[in-house]
Amino acid sequence: MTVETPSPTNTPERAAVAAGAQEWLETLQSWVRIPSVSADPDHHADVAASARFLAGELRAKGFPEVKVLDEGPWLPAVLAHWPSGDPAAVRVVVYGHHDVQPADGVERWTHPPFEPRIIDGILHGRGASDDKGNIAMHLLGLSAHLSATGRTAPAVDLTMLVEGEEESGSPHILELLQAYRSELDADLVVVSDTGIFGPETPSVCIGMRGLVAGEIHVHGPDIDLHSGSFGGAVPNPIAELSRILAALHDDDRHVAVTGFYDDVVDPTEAERAATAALPFDERAWISGPAASRVPAGEAGWTTLERVGARPTAEINGIWGGYTGPGNKTIVPTDAYAKLTFRLVGRQDPATIQKLVTDFVQATARPGVEVEIHWEGSGVAPLYVDTTHPATTATRRALGLAFDTDEVLMTREGGSGPEAELAGVIGAPLVFLGVMTDADQIHAPNESASVPLLLKGCEAVAHLWRELAELGRAGLE
Amino acid sequence: MTVETPSPTNTPERAAVAAGAQEWLETLQSWVRIPSVSADPDHHADVAASARFLAGELRAKGFPEVKVLDEGPWLPAVLAHWPSGDPAAVRVVVYGHHDVQPADGVERWTHPPFEPRIIDGILHGRGASDDKGNIAMHLLGLSAHLSATGRTAPAVDLTMLVEGEEESGSPHILELLQAYRSELDADLVVVSDTGIFGPETPSVCIGMRGLVAGEIHVHGPDIDLHSGSFGGAVPNPIAELSRILAALHDDDRHVAVTGFYDDVVDPTEAERAATAALPFDERAWISGPAASRVPAGEAGWTTLERVGARPTAEINGIWGGYTGPGNKTIVPTDAYAKLTFRLVGRQDPATIQKLVTDFVQATARPGVEVEIHWEGSGVAPLYVDTTHPATTATRRALGLAFDTDEVLMTREGGSGPEAELAGVIGAPLVFLGVMTDADQIHAPNESASVPLLLKGCEAVAHLWRELAELGRAGLE
Repeated sequence: MTVETPSPTNTPERAAVAAGAQEWLETLQSWVRIPSVSADPDHHADVAASARFLAGELRAKGFPEVKVLDEGPWLPAVLAHWPSGDPAAVRVVVYGHHDVQPADGVERWTHPPFEPRIIDGILHGRGASDDKGNIAMHLLGLSAHLSATGRTAPAVDLTMLVEGEEESGSPHILELLQAYRSELDADLVVVSDTGIFGPETPSVCIGMRGLVAGEIHVHGPDIDLHSGSFGGAVPNPIAELSRILAALHDDDRHVAVTGFYDDVVDPTEAERAATAALPFDERAWISGPAASRVPAGEAGWTTLERVGARPTAEINGIWGGYTGPGNKTIVPTDAYAKLTFRLVGRQDPATIQKLVTDFVQATARPGVEVEIHWEGSGVAPLYVDTTHPATTATRRALGLAFDTDEVLMTREGGSGPEAELAGVIGAPLVFLGVMTDADQIHAPNESASVPLLLKGCEAVAHLWRELAELGRAGLE
Repeated sequence: MTVETPSPTNTPERAAVAAGAQEWLETLQSWVRIPSVSADPDHHADVAASARFLAGELRAKGFPEVKVLDEGPWLPAVLAHWPSGDPAAVRVVVYGHHDVQPADGVERWTHPPFEPRIIDGILHGRGASDDKGNIAMHLLGLSAHLSATGRTAPAVDLTMLVEGEEESGSPHILELLQAYRSELDADLVVVSDTGIFGPETPSVCIGMRGLVAGEIHVHGPDIDLHSGSFGGAVPNPIAELSRILAALHDDDRHVAVTGFYDDVVDPTEAERAATAALPFDERAWISGPAASRVPAGEAGWTTLERVGARPTAEINGIWGGYTGPGNKTIVPTDAYAKLTFRLVGRQDPATIQKLVTDFVQATARPGVEVEIHWEGSGVAPLYVDTTHPATTATRRALGLAFDTDEVLMTREGGSGPEAELAGVIGAPLVFLGVMTDADQIHAPNESASVPLLLKGCEAVAHLWRELAELGRAGLE
């Protein structure tokens, strides 16, 4: 499918983005300085400060109605409205998040995570890309839209919903959406929390995986035991945990949880062919962004399918027993592991939680107490309607910003609360984001490419104009 | 086999122990206050302080020659000599250690580990039993021996060798023994670092298992990767480590390392019958000292055999990836585990290290870098000659202290450098120690029973007299 894109031009949107870039980058850096780590209670005051910062910027930009939503079980979110003034205008909700991943392993950061700076066109800092950079695009993008169109209000009814718990799995997103449902009537949801295929290859995301996250706790002896006096005669919780974790995959790296694949929808032959045709350099990917030695995953599927179209079981952390210097000859009391499962097709988070819980309990042997604690209710997979006019408009906007008429459609391996968003708001959903694998978004040394962020700002400005031209009727 | 023991009497040794107990307990508590954790470099100054403390006490006791050995690769050890004055006297080397296990998990200690106190006849503190308590028995035991016999020098040529690295696997014991070999000529080695069957059931140890300790390191991606963008397509080091650890045992909990059992010597039917006849209450052991729910170990063997006669593979610690609050959706860079293997029969530490290394490398899959680092060269299993006169003398001494003529012989599951000691010194070896399972010696809340420690002091005093009565000829 080809999208007709106007020839590359030096548009007024681009000129406006260029004019505002310097000041905007200062603002973004000030925001990145706030360590809004939602996973860590010690940083919850920073999450609140980050919400207040964004609210202030939205007000300064001209949004007539801006609220910090801090009276629910959720961490502070921001909700802002700027109506177009035209009752027939397209109503858009922009979604993203202002919380960031933890920055642990600080010794592995070349630049301190919360002291952002720009070196050779790269903005370094936790949140520079995910998601402060991609949400900030809407600040400069809106200015460019107003400047390019000569308007004093956006050409679409604009609502921004920026939550503060996405990096913790959006545990309260449903409650948040329901509490403010009356302010979220929309014809389209625009999510800015994804990426493009590559710096030279713009693309829109057309699918995200679902996610459930849990923690397994295996309890063995009630006290650390001398491994000489007791070892070999009582269950060792680390050995039992290892056994459970090893059983999660079979030798072909299929997930071995009974029933796990029941609701997976396999890609069609045409989809597989399209994926295979993408300009993907696996070798460069492995040694570059994947920083690994060999691809390794579920037998029968390619790397791009493994990260986009297939569900996974991943172990994110493990701990137990003695981890200090030297050795300590104990049978320890406890062992723990953190797990996440990525979901696709019609896999349902609650069903997967139950299947995994059952599997873990069935795999555990007598003599240890095994519990699995699920973090919230998880999120379902989401798929974009690739033929919807809003999808086409988004590709066109991105193509204009990137001076190309080739804008790919790809599946993203990550997860967010998009299924909840689309479900509660009851509107189609598109993704507009410019992250790349080079951004190392959940790792030490997160960064963002400034030229790509500015292209993202420009695409935002184009999108509001494109949507206004389509009109509400054009989206039906 | 029955040992003829004099009828229980209120011996002069017992009276002398009782008279000196109060002052001795003060000394022991001062020693326990020094956190001589050999595994932790931050505590190496404390290990040196502990050696100096013991040296001072030995000098005060009357030892004419006392040295702190601190000029080798080892942590400071203490070597002291007190000749009997009789060229025909039995020459004894007493071995033990003054370093202690780490006290991590301080929040699980009811009493702070290095602030010893005595409550209801129990001395609480790290090292109260293992091994400061059991080595300190030789201070009061020697006084009681001198007082009871009216001598000004011991009736045996007494050498004390107390090392500072036992809890770290005695990595330099061979070098230490070789460096001071000329001062270690002996007819008997007495090791005070083991226990008795129970508070009412004195016993001597007649075997200790060998030990090798290592750390596995699995390296995956060079940076933490977003588990959505990369998970399922690159190897996860925690999953690979779990797979290796799970493969260490088969479903019957036999160690699955190829060749592992080749040099194991199975107990005879008579030995199995003797072990089965021991007054062992498995149920009480599981819910009491083992603080567990069910016995679990190698199929085909009883609990006592599993901890005494059989070799084991135990995982002592594990860590990797994100272990903080909430979740972090990463494929982490690295995973680590600490392992110990207990050895029996003719199992050779170097051979086992090689077999395990080969097994781990053969089990690891492509795409991760797997290394196993061995902590020193390990220690070999050791067996006591149960018919040797020194073994009989030790049982008799213990029987006198416990007012019984029943002194059992048991195998200890733990490990120490006894094989090296016996080998380098070239003398028979006996064990005299009064630890019990209740002491929680490698766990939080280590403690020692004061009445048992005092019985141990008394047994020391009896043993020197018994050995002097036997004479050097009687030991040949």
